[in-house]
Amino acid sequence: MPDTKPMFERVALIGIGLIGSSLAHAIRRQGLAGEIVISTRSSETLKRAEELGLGDRFEPDPARAVEDADLVVLSIPVGACGAVAERIGPHLKTGAILTDAGSTKASVVRDVAPHVPEGVHFIPGHPIAGTEQSGPDAGFTSLFEGRWAILTPLPGTDPAALEKLTAFWTACGSKVDTMDPAHHDRVLAIVSHLPHIIAYNIVGTADDLETVSKSEVIKYSASGFRDFTRLAASDPTMWRDVCLANREAILEMLGRFSEDLAALQRSIRWGDGDALFDLFTRTRAIRRSIIEAGQEVDAPDFGRHPEIAKPGE
Amino acid sequence: MPDTKPMFERVALIGIGLIGSSLAHAIRRQGLAGEIVISTRSSETLKRAEELGLGDRFEPDPARAVEDADLVVLSIPVGACGAVAERIGPHLKTGAILTDAGSTKASVVRDVAPHVPEGVHFIPGHPIAGTEQSGPDAGFTSLFEGRWAILTPLPGTDPAALEKLTAFWTACGSKVDTMDPAHHDRVLAIVSHLPHIIAYNIVGTADDLETVSKSEVIKYSASGFRDFTRLAASDPTMWRDVCLANREAILEMLGRFSEDLAALQRSIRWGDGDALFDLFTRTRAIRRSIIEAGQEVDAPDFGRHPEIAKPGE
Repeated sequence: MPDTKPMFERVALIGIGLIGSSLAHAIRRQGLAGEIVISTRSSETLKRAEELGLGDRFEPDPARAVEDADLVVLSIPVGACGAVAERIGPHLKTGAILTDAGSTKASVVRDVAPHVPEGVHFIPGHPIAGTEQSGPDAGFTSLFEGRWAILTPLPGTDPAALEKLTAFWTACGSKVDTMDPAHHDRVLAIVSHLPHIIAYNIVGTADDLETVSKSEVIKYSASGFRDFTRLAASDPTMWRDVCLANREAILEMLGRFSEDLAALQRSIRWGDGDALFDLFTRTRAIRRSIIEAGQEVDAPDFGRHPEIAKPGE
Repeated sequence: MPDTKPMFERVALIGIGLIGSSLAHAIRRQGLAGEIVISTRSSETLKRAEELGLGDRFEPDPARAVEDADLVVLSIPVGACGAVAERIGPHLKTGAILTDAGSTKASVVRDVAPHVPEGVHFIPGHPIAGTEQSGPDAGFTSLFEGRWAILTPLPGTDPAALEKLTAFWTACGSKVDTMDPAHHDRVLAIVSHLPHIIAYNIVGTADDLETVSKSEVIKYSASGFRDFTRLAASDPTMWRDVCLANREAILEMLGRFSEDLAALQRSIRWGDGDALFDLFTRTRAIRRSIIEAGQEVDAPDFGRHPEIAKPGE
């Protein structure tokens, strides 16, 4: 038994994909829970989580998994949150914190809040971390280290519960910000949803060409294309749900993107080299800022090739 | 002195940025030249190349640099190729091979060929390799290893010269393909030019938002946006020239991309989850193929974080 009392007696992880399994590793490593209970819809995935030893107890029924849990984390596609909340709502313990890791927040609030009983602290959240891989094997302890977790507390959220959830994410390695759900959805529309949609789209466009073969696209992909394929290899269910759940903000960002692209296309058509040069210059600074903020590696090619870390050798 | 005769007595590198300096390293490492002569327009860059010891001789005047050279490689923005060819043309040695590393080929053929004297073998080329960095400090020996170099020989190209240039790129670590210049430009429009243009565009769109601050874009960029910033940090002069030089093929690919994006946007607006799921599923396979072809690292997040290479730890 640990010398000190863990932060939570019992944590229930509903969903055990990349985020859920990374949380399981981090909770275990940091000793944040007396007991980890895992539940997920697919019996195959639950079995795999058990093989990997990600938790202490494995429950097919989420309603049983959340019983007596002090912290419940939903790490499932946002489109599934409503139904799961409806199922677990009556079984949540008074005083428990219910949070989630979904990529959209207004839809989660809309779908989950009606099912949360009085006395349960529902604080939506979103860790800004991930890889293109999914499933219980994809998780790793350091996923959240140095990344941001955004919490979107609702009016009347208990400050003590918010503080405890903040301490939880901090213990997992995250830096924590709070904002309102609508602002979260606008921010994520530009930094995450639009990039994924654009990446999916360009890979689809390349896949459809008649004049350039798929094997040519693959062979010569190191010239730029491959950078897009990472995002376009993300989980399809998760991203379908994001597109449906954050429609308004995504359509707004897509409109701006297409407008800007039309202007850029016009500069190309009419040979306006100065306009092209100006755009291509100002975008350079942003990468430098991201590296300085510690959100990107400071090595060419994303550090793909360790030998490039030392140019000239 | 080396025991065996080098492939070329004298190689002249015109332009000493990422590609030129990487060639200098590879030539030196493989002993492919008796002498490396370097010339570039900026006296500051030429001085830096000398400090780095990238060559044996450093000439401000490209016409002097190419004198008696057996191989001349132009690694300069494609928009500068015509003027440089005009300057060096009369000074090229009979029997010399003249090639380039430009990202577009039809424009280089159009601009350079008229200045190439009888008896000089002009074989345009393009190594499909690079990082987002530029300048003489950015080069490294292994840049071309495992990557493709495309040669676009013209009608009547001397087979022996083509064979020798192929052997040169092979010695630098490349695999070599040949195709005609127009097809090269269509292929590169989709695998390289469109990805760069899209990346520049989305970074510009994010930079212009009023509702989401620049610091928010930077903080939360790990959720997708940062993947685009690498391409958008590429050399502005090079990319302006590419856009102007490969206009027709780029406009064709942009047209298709925008058409596909409009359809995708419509699916989002009307909540067509099946269409979204189908697209998001088929794009997954392409990344797997690129990894299997050895053109991408087999680690989540581009291998940015070495600890992710072993999930579960």
